[in-house]
Amino acid sequence: MNPGGGPGLPCMTRIIADISISLDGCVTGPDPGPGNGLGTGGEALHTWAFSDDPEERRIVRETTARSGAVVLGRRLFDLVDGPGGWDDTVGYGAAEVGRPPFVVVTASPPESVRLTGLDWTFVTTGLPDAVAAARERAEAASADLGRDLDVVLMGGGALIGSALDAGLVEVLSLHLAPVVLGSGTPLFTGGTPHTLVRRSANATPNATHLLYEVL
Amino acid sequence: MNPGGGPGLPCMTRIIADISISLDGCVTGPDPGPGNGLGTGGEALHTWAFSDDPEERRIVRETTARSGAVVLGRRLFDLVDGPGGWDDTVGYGAAEVGRPPFVVVTASPPESVRLTGLDWTFVTTGLPDAVAAARERAEAASADLGRDLDVVLMGGGALIGSALDAGLVEVLSLHLAPVVLGSGTPLFTGGTPHTLVRRSANATPNATHLLYEVL
Repeated sequence: MNPGGGPGLPCMTRIIADISISLDGCVTGPDPGPGNGLGTGGEALHTWAFSDDPEERRIVRETTARSGAVVLGRRLFDLVDGPGGWDDTVGYGAAEVGRPPFVVVTASPPESVRLTGLDWTFVTTGLPDAVAAARERAEAASADLGRDLDVVLMGGGALIGSALDAGLVEVLSLHLAPVVLGSGTPLFTGGTPHTLVRRSANATPNATHLLYEVL
Repeated sequence: MNPGGGPGLPCMTRIIADISISLDGCVTGPDPGPGNGLGTGGEALHTWAFSDDPEERRIVRETTARSGAVVLGRRLFDLVDGPGGWDDTVGYGAAEVGRPPFVVVTASPPESVRLTGLDWTFVTTGLPDAVAAARERAEAASADLGRDLDVVLMGGGALIGSALDAGLVEVLSLHLAPVVLGSGTPLFTGGTPHTLVRRSANATPNATHLLYEVL
């Protein structure tokens, strides 16, 4: 059933936070930054996303395919647009379907962009405005394609944590890696309790994929 | 296959840390203590353990049935032996099979024990000694019963975290509740990275049950 697919009904675009996380709740290892994007040991978080396992490939493909627009923070933008960042083989579903528009939350837009082949929007008026801009883009793309596309918050961790605490996240998609990083960037730092409802759980060789609705 | 069940083979007693945890890695909510054992909001961690769901009942039953001995810290002992603690209906598998011996790690044993119907041992020489004492008990019980029983570390969080960092934990059994507690007692605080291998994942209505081997 497609809840937004009937005639006259609005498209059903959800705000999904999608991120890989360790058992100790970290989305990077210690000392993340340029040249060490996921922090020390943090590459273990993404083993599943770079594996050849067909089920893990399917999950990457489906996440990419449902992305009507992607929101990211400025630090993450600097990493992916930096010299060690995305290229033709490593990127947001670079080897998969589609190239969604990207919305970057930043205090001041960069002077130039390396990845000019992608569709970048820089929002300087805060996270809610960035999510609203991404929602517009995702809804327009949904209408064009005739199927529901989502807004995906890809990170970093602080952006997703802030969005969660601001009540902007409708669905939390966690890829739980079998690793304790010891320290790093925690996903949940806001001190705010949240009750969630698990909608699916899917164990693949390198992670456990958990989809929660945020109440 | 029973790896320790062949003639002439030693019993296969594993050291299992078994604990319920929130998505933000907490094993209690904020302000745990007498009268508020799991901290504020922390009861959501144990919804699965007190549900009527047959699969969740089965998991509680199996955990209890495999417990050859149980290790706990002094603060947790004070809670379960305290006035609001365990009784005939709430306890370590009180309504389920068996009553394993309990080994408490403490600087000084209590002057008296309320739950005299249970088998308590107080170890004052540290966690490794407590685990060794529990292993002896579990192995003796395994030999008596002719099936493999484990040492279960039931908590609190600090005890399990310390045991993990000391390399004492062979298997980590996490019951992941669909809740973000915001603050409370984190399970992983040692700053030590660990690589694990997931042996099973089991989604029930109120939790996701994840069994990891600690490498």
